[in-house]
Amino acid sequence: MHSSASLYAAIDLGSNSFHMLVVREVAGSIQTLTRIKRKVRLAAGLDHENHLSQEAMERGWQCLRLFAERLQDLPPAHIRVVATATLRLAVNAGQFLEQAHAILGCPVQVISGEEEASLIYQGVAHTTGGSDKRLVVDIGGASTELVTGNGAQTTALFSLSMGCVTWLERFFTDRNLEQASFDAAEQAAREVIRPVVGALRQQGWEACVGASGTVQALQEIMMAQGMDERITLAKLQQLKQRAIQCGRLEELEIEGLTLERALVFPSGLAILIAIFTELDIACMTLAGGALREGLLYGMLHLPVDLNIRARTLHNVQHRFMIDTRQASRVAQLAARFADDVTQSWDLDAFCREMLQNACELHEMGLSVDFKQAPLHAAWLVRNLDLPGFTPAQKKLLATLLLNQTNTIDIASLHQQNAVPPRIAERLCRLLRLAILFSNRRRDDALPAVTLTAEGETLHVTLPMNWLAEHPLGKELLTQETLWQSYVHWPLDVN
Amino acid sequence: MHSSASLYAAIDLGSNSFHMLVVREVAGSIQTLTRIKRKVRLAAGLDHENHLSQEAMERGWQCLRLFAERLQDLPPAHIRVVATATLRLAVNAGQFLEQAHAILGCPVQVISGEEEASLIYQGVAHTTGGSDKRLVVDIGGASTELVTGNGAQTTALFSLSMGCVTWLERFFTDRNLEQASFDAAEQAAREVIRPVVGALRQQGWEACVGASGTVQALQEIMMAQGMDERITLAKLQQLKQRAIQCGRLEELEIEGLTLERALVFPSGLAILIAIFTELDIACMTLAGGALREGLLYGMLHLPVDLNIRARTLHNVQHRFMIDTRQASRVAQLAARFADDVTQSWDLDAFCREMLQNACELHEMGLSVDFKQAPLHAAWLVRNLDLPGFTPAQKKLLATLLLNQTNTIDIASLHQQNAVPPRIAERLCRLLRLAILFSNRRRDDALPAVTLTAEGETLHVTLPMNWLAEHPLGKELLTQETLWQSYVHWPLDVN
Repeated sequence: MHSSASLYAAIDLGSNSFHMLVVREVAGSIQTLTRIKRKVRLAAGLDHENHLSQEAMERGWQCLRLFAERLQDLPPAHIRVVATATLRLAVNAGQFLEQAHAILGCPVQVISGEEEASLIYQGVAHTTGGSDKRLVVDIGGASTELVTGNGAQTTALFSLSMGCVTWLERFFTDRNLEQASFDAAEQAAREVIRPVVGALRQQGWEACVGASGTVQALQEIMMAQGMDERITLAKLQQLKQRAIQCGRLEELEIEGLTLERALVFPSGLAILIAIFTELDIACMTLAGGALREGLLYGMLHLPVDLNIRARTLHNVQHRFMIDTRQASRVAQLAARFADDVTQSWDLDAFCREMLQNACELHEMGLSVDFKQAPLHAAWLVRNLDLPGFTPAQKKLLATLLLNQTNTIDIASLHQQNAVPPRIAERLCRLLRLAILFSNRRRDDALPAVTLTAEGETLHVTLPMNWLAEHPLGKELLTQETLWQSYVHWPLDVN
Repeated sequence: MHSSASLYAAIDLGSNSFHMLVVREVAGSIQTLTRIKRKVRLAAGLDHENHLSQEAMERGWQCLRLFAERLQDLPPAHIRVVATATLRLAVNAGQFLEQAHAILGCPVQVISGEEEASLIYQGVAHTTGGSDKRLVVDIGGASTELVTGNGAQTTALFSLSMGCVTWLERFFTDRNLEQASFDAAEQAAREVIRPVVGALRQQGWEACVGASGTVQALQEIMMAQGMDERITLAKLQQLKQRAIQCGRLEELEIEGLTLERALVFPSGLAILIAIFTELDIACMTLAGGALREGLLYGMLHLPVDLNIRARTLHNVQHRFMIDTRQASRVAQLAARFADDVTQSWDLDAFCREMLQNACELHEMGLSVDFKQAPLHAAWLVRNLDLPGFTPAQKKLLATLLLNQTNTIDIASLHQQNAVPPRIAERLCRLLRLAILFSNRRRDDALPAVTLTAEGETLHVTLPMNWLAEHPLGKELLTQETLWQSYVHWPLDVN
């Protein structure tokens, strides 16, 4: 058996870039081995009669020769190559595709807008947490996909002829970032969207997820600026005003916006504002994957899990050999503690889920080393690909794991942007106490401890004589009271 | 099943400190869950008639109550509690032991000096790389063990009545660090050692390994000062001179020496100098474990592996789901490259083994994420407990893995202290090229490439037309040539 027998490749020949993703399937998870992206700008070679220029084709073939060298060793059933908008449009696509087939040794499939939308939806469904009754938005270079679905099933699919590259060329040709250009771009986008609004609204959604470079750029901007990661119309309008202040595209400077994404950011922003307005979207988050992930999961025949975050946790627990009984024990005690303080501490379902997730993973640092295990756990959670978790959620989990014991780094609890700082502190305190009182690693040895919260003061009530009978527990609790007092968290033990 | 069914505890009641180590056995490796150490200073409670004071006993029992709370949930067969020198000597040890049994719920075994020496040897044999015909030295608080062995078998065992605490009290009572005190301490130590020199020398050894706080302190000092990690008599003499210059124990200041280890450092140093002199030891390295590890591996019934480093690599490859075929492929190509340049590049067997180890682990960062995989690999290797590898060897591996691709951080290659900087650079270059040319992940797709070294210039000779037929390979190689040129490594491709 070659090592390559467990490899899979997904290639997408987009209007702006060609991408190749090679992964290895291992222990039920997907490990990326190679990721190659080339800005082929195929769309730029399309003239008014949709004739693709020889130069553009050459650029495309050149890129495919690189991909081919990597692909030749994979089983053909493990390779999927798709082409989208530009090759759908090009009247001479046949010439490009014939040569592409010869170079790659496998056929390129030009997919329809609906197929593209469906694959994007599958990619999102396999990698994104939250409610699974969702609206998925993907703004590409030359097309924009809007899809509603429920779990693994799509309910309405649309691929619209507008994209951040085409809108750039149509409305920002002179590279001026004026109110008037934005207005025109938004207006045109709204007209494209309007015909499909009814069908999408009829299906409805509980969560809206964005899966393109524009949404990725927004995510990076919000993280860099310390905002929470939910995209709202108000934030988009603010960024538009900021762009208008910059005046010209080459002077566009927004904290967190990379050079690579800047060129098509204003046009993508205008389209996104139009989508938010027409569909009356309250808030959008970033998807964990899109087209290429849809291709891969399709080849791997993995079922769409109803609870992606739970699947991810389970997989990580297995890979890092976490003692799952102990993890559940801590999670159950933490849930009990959260119930105890529910009146005063305002922990919503999302916070409670994050607390549970932190409990499930808290011992993962031990797989690296006992020394600095919390630091190792935080490093792993921050850097692992965790399908179902957004970057902000990963950051929150990482900071909770970092502060699971020993001295508390209060600044790190404030730097995450998934929940308000005060809430992160409260989750951290519940996690620490749940770990402390579960330290005997037995269900029947959990003390009958209860918590009460009065403002930030936490009262711990223990059974009579518990402290006297548990010298180690007493020592740990005394030390914990000190640690919490250093960061002004009053902890009172009776 | 409780989570605790896979837990094991090793407790050692030493003359200076009591230690408890609780581990979890998982996938053939040992994961530390709890480590508690208390400076009980039992030896200080021993009077001239070897009568242990009530106060000292109370301190001991108090500590055992902490341990007991953690121990009560472990299966009795998974607990081993041993006591050493002080309780061997104490005429009223029985009183202490009876109460200790009642507190712990399991008996304390007072082990003889020979048993102690044997357990230390087993702890070393299970955790320490290099030749397995070895001399093991462990300087405790009140006794010093000297053992020779071959693989898992000891060949000569001695436990001598001297230790860094007793020598501190005898020769540095006034806390002065004078030449005369060192002379007296060394002289007395040599007299204790002399009677056993013949028997040890008769067995002989190829490697000498130290397993105590003194050797640990030396290791930390050498790492902090950027020295290589081999302890030699010259280095010990230098440190003694430095200590004498400091004048008094409370003013002892040596870069890398922690406060915790300072008190018994001069007395331990004097004993170690005496051992080096009497046994004519050329060089000593740090053991990976000692008494507690001997107890644990004994309970776990794991066989002593002849090649501990190979066992560790295998275990890590499995835990981090490394593609072992690809790892071997890269290792074989790297070995071929090392052969190619053997004339000019002076790579000894140790260097070549480290290169192989780096190849075996190079993809481990992918288990965290494709993005920054080399950084993740370096983090893991630096922090993982890797039986058989010394801290300096781990640092070398980590820096090689960090620099396996992309830009080269030359400073990191110079910061390790396992091999000279120039050698680390050479190993790094061979590793990078072996990875590059194995990128198709097939044995039958390795190009017939050969290397030649002229000084630091490396010539890569490829089959005719290879570059023309491999556009991706060519691109990678061109980029590699650039990266190497940035750090002034001439790479020439024909």
